[in-house]
Amino acid sequence: MSNLLDIFTKIKAFVFDVDGVLTDGSVLVTEEGELLRNMNIKDGYALKKAIKEGFKIAIITGGRSQGVVKRLNGLGITDIYIGAEEKTDAFNDFCNLYNLEPSQIAIMGDDNPDLPLLLKSGLSSCPKDAVPDVLDYCAFISSQEGGRGAVRDLLEKVLKAQGKW
Amino acid sequence: MSNLLDIFTKIKAFVFDVDGVLTDGSVLVTEEGELLRNMNIKDGYALKKAIKEGFKIAIITGGRSQGVVKRLNGLGITDIYIGAEEKTDAFNDFCNLYNLEPSQIAIMGDDNPDLPLLLKSGLSSCPKDAVPDVLDYCAFISSQEGGRGAVRDLLEKVLKAQGKW
Amino acid sequence: MSNLLDIFTKIKAFVFDVDGVLTDGSVLVTEEGELLRNMNIKDGYALKKAIKEGFKIAIITGGRSQGVVKRLNGLGITDIYIGAEEKTDAFNDFCNLYNLEPSQIAIMGDDNPDLPLLLKSGLSSCPKDAVPDVLDYCAFISSQEGGRGAVRDLLEKVLKAQGKW
Amino acid sequence: MSNLLDIFTKIKAFVFDVDGVLTDGSVLVTEEGELLRNMNIKDGYALKKAIKEGFKIAIITGGRSQGVVKRLNGLGITDIYIGAEEKTDAFNDFCNLYNLEPSQIAIMGDDNPDLPLLLKSGLSSCPKDAVPDVLDYCAFISSQEGGRGAVRDLLEKVLKAQGKW
Repeated sequence: MSNLLDIFTKIKAFVFDVDGVLTDGSVLVTEEGELLRNMNIKDGYALKKAIKEGFKIAIITGGRSQGVVKRLNGLGITDIYIGAEEKTDAFNDFCNLYNLEPSQIAIMGDDNPDLPLLLKSGLSSCPKDAVPDVLDYCAFISSQEGGRGAVRDLLEKVLKAQGKW
Repeated sequence: MSNLLDIFTKIKAFVFDVDGVLTDGSVLVTEEGELLRNMNIKDGYALKKAIKEGFKIAIITGGRSQGVVKRLNGLGITDIYIGAEEKTDAFNDFCNLYNLEPSQIAIMGDDNPDLPLLLKSGLSSCPKDAVPDVLDYCAFISSQEGGRGAVRDLLEKVLKAQGKW
Repeated sequence: MSNLLDIFTKIKAFVFDVDGVLTDGSVLVTEEGELLRNMNIKDGYALKKAIKEGFKIAIITGGRSQGVVKRLNGLGITDIYIGAEEKTDAFNDFCNLYNLEPSQIAIMGDDNPDLPLLLKSGLSSCPKDAVPDVLDYCAFISSQEGGRGAVRDLLEKVLKAQGKW
Repeated sequence: MSNLLDIFTKIKAFVFDVDGVLTDGSVLVTEEGELLRNMNIKDGYALKKAIKEGFKIAIITGGRSQGVVKRLNGLGITDIYIGAEEKTDAFNDFCNLYNLEPSQIAIMGDDNPDLPLLLKSGLSSCPKDAVPDVLDYCAFISSQEGGRGAVRDLLEKVLKAQGKW
C-alpha cells in the first residue's frame, strides 16, 4: 500500500482509453445507427483540475467518436489519439512530445487491446468492471466502474498523494 | 437523529446542484457533441409539491444545459442560476431575494465545487454517491443516488417533518 | 401466500402507471428539452401475451409522452389515459367500458399520485423501487424495478396462476 | 464443470438474440416514438475476435431495428435474421448455409421466444438477468447481464477453451 502511494507521487501524466474507462462501455444505438456514449461529470471535474495542476493527459482509443472528442476538447484535453490501431505508437509519440518517461505515466484501460500499454506504464490501472485479463494485470483497481467515477478516483488519489487536490 | 429532525422543521428553502444531484452525473454524448442528461420523475413530483407548499427552491450550477432549465421551468422552478462560477454569489442573491437566513436553507451538492455552499447552509446534504470530500462533510447523506431519488428523499423527509407532505 | 395466489386467479384486467412502472422513472433530457423515456422489452412481451390471452389493459398516467403512447399502441394497448389529473375518473371509465369490478383489476403504481387507484384495486402492486408510501401500502411488491421487469413479473405471475402463460 | 468445458471445445458457431442479450433489454423512447437500444463495446471486441478466429455468428431476432443491424454489420456480422417470427426456421437456414450440426452451435437467449432455439442447441446459455423460464433451462448462465458483457463472457470462455483467445 505504501508502495502504491509511492508510485502515486511520481506520476506526471495520465493516459486514458475511452470506451469502458471514460465511458461506461455502453453505446446507445439510434435507428439510423448513430452511437451515443455515456460519460461522467465527476470525471470531467477531475480532468480539468489535473490539467490546471500541470499534469499532461492523453486519450488513446481505437474508436473514432467525434462527440467524445468534442466533449474532451471542452475539458481542455488536446492530446487525443483516435483510431489508434497500434496504441503503443501513440503512447511513444506522447512520451516524446512532453519528454516523459513511461515510469511517470499512469494508464487506465479496461480491455485486452489496452494490455500492451498497461505493460509499459509506471502505474497500470483499471475500473472495477474491466475484463478479467486486465483485472489480473493491473496494480491499481479502482473501486469505481468505467464512466461512473473510475477516472475521477485515480486522478483524485494521485493528486492528493502529491498535495495538489 | 432527533437533532436532524429538529433541523428539518426549520427549513424554508432548498438549493440544489444539477449534475450528480438532479441528474445521475452522466452525460450522454451524441456524435455532434450534444450532451443529454438523466433526470428523475420522482424528484419532479416532490419539487412541484414543495413549491405548492410554499418552499423556495433555487438551482445553482456551474453548467449551462438549456434542456435542464426547460425541464425545471416546467416543474415551476424559476430561480435558476446557470454558469455560476462563484456559487456563493448566487446563494447570497437568493437569500436576499426572499429574505432568507442561511440556517433556513437546505443544500444538496455532490462534488467539490459545492463545498463552499454546503459550509454555509443550515442543512448540508448529498446523495449517497457524492464524492468522498462531500460525503465526509454533510450532515444528511441520502440513502438514494443523485438523479435517482436523492432530491425526492430530502424533500419528502423535510416536508413530512413539517406535516406538509 | 396462498391468499395472494388466490387473488391472482381472479384478475381479469390490469392498470399500469407509466413513469416508474412501465419506465425506470428516468427522463433523458436533450438540449432542446425533449424528454426520452426508458422502457423494457421483457415487459413488452408479457403485455402482448396478456392481451392475446384476453386480459384488458389500461394505462393511466398524469404524463403526456407521445412516444410512450406510440410504443404502447405498437404492443396492442388501446386504452391509454394520458394527462389524467384525476386518475380515479379514468379508472371508473375503464371499469364501465368493459364491465369490470375493481376486485378483478390488478394495479401497479410507484408514487403518491397512484395511491387513490391502488386503494380501489383488487390487487395493489408496485416495483421494488416505489416510494415509501406506496411500498407500505401494496399487497404485492415485485422483486424487480420499474422499467426493468416489474410489469413482466406481475403479468407472468398472474397468467401462470391462471394457467395462461 | 469439466463437462461444460468439454462442450466449449466443440463449438464452431454462435447464435445470439438481440434484445436482452446483445442489448440490456431497455428501449429508450423518443417523443416521436423512435427506439434506441443499448449495446456494449466489450461484447463488440469479442464478436470481432471470434469472427477473425473463424467462428460463424448468426443474429436471430423478432425485432427489426435497423440501427442494431448497422452496428452489427460494422462488427463484421452478416448473418442477421430480423423479424424472425419463427426462430427455428432461421436457425435451420443458418445450419444449412454453413453445414453446421446443432451440437456445434452455442445459443444465447433471454426470454420465452428463445426457448425453442435453446432446446436445439449444443450449448444453451443466457445472461444472468434472463427470465425465470430461460434461467431454469440453460446449461450455462453467464455471471454478466445482457448488453453488459454476457455475450463477451460466453465468447471469451469458449475461445479460451479452444486456445483461440
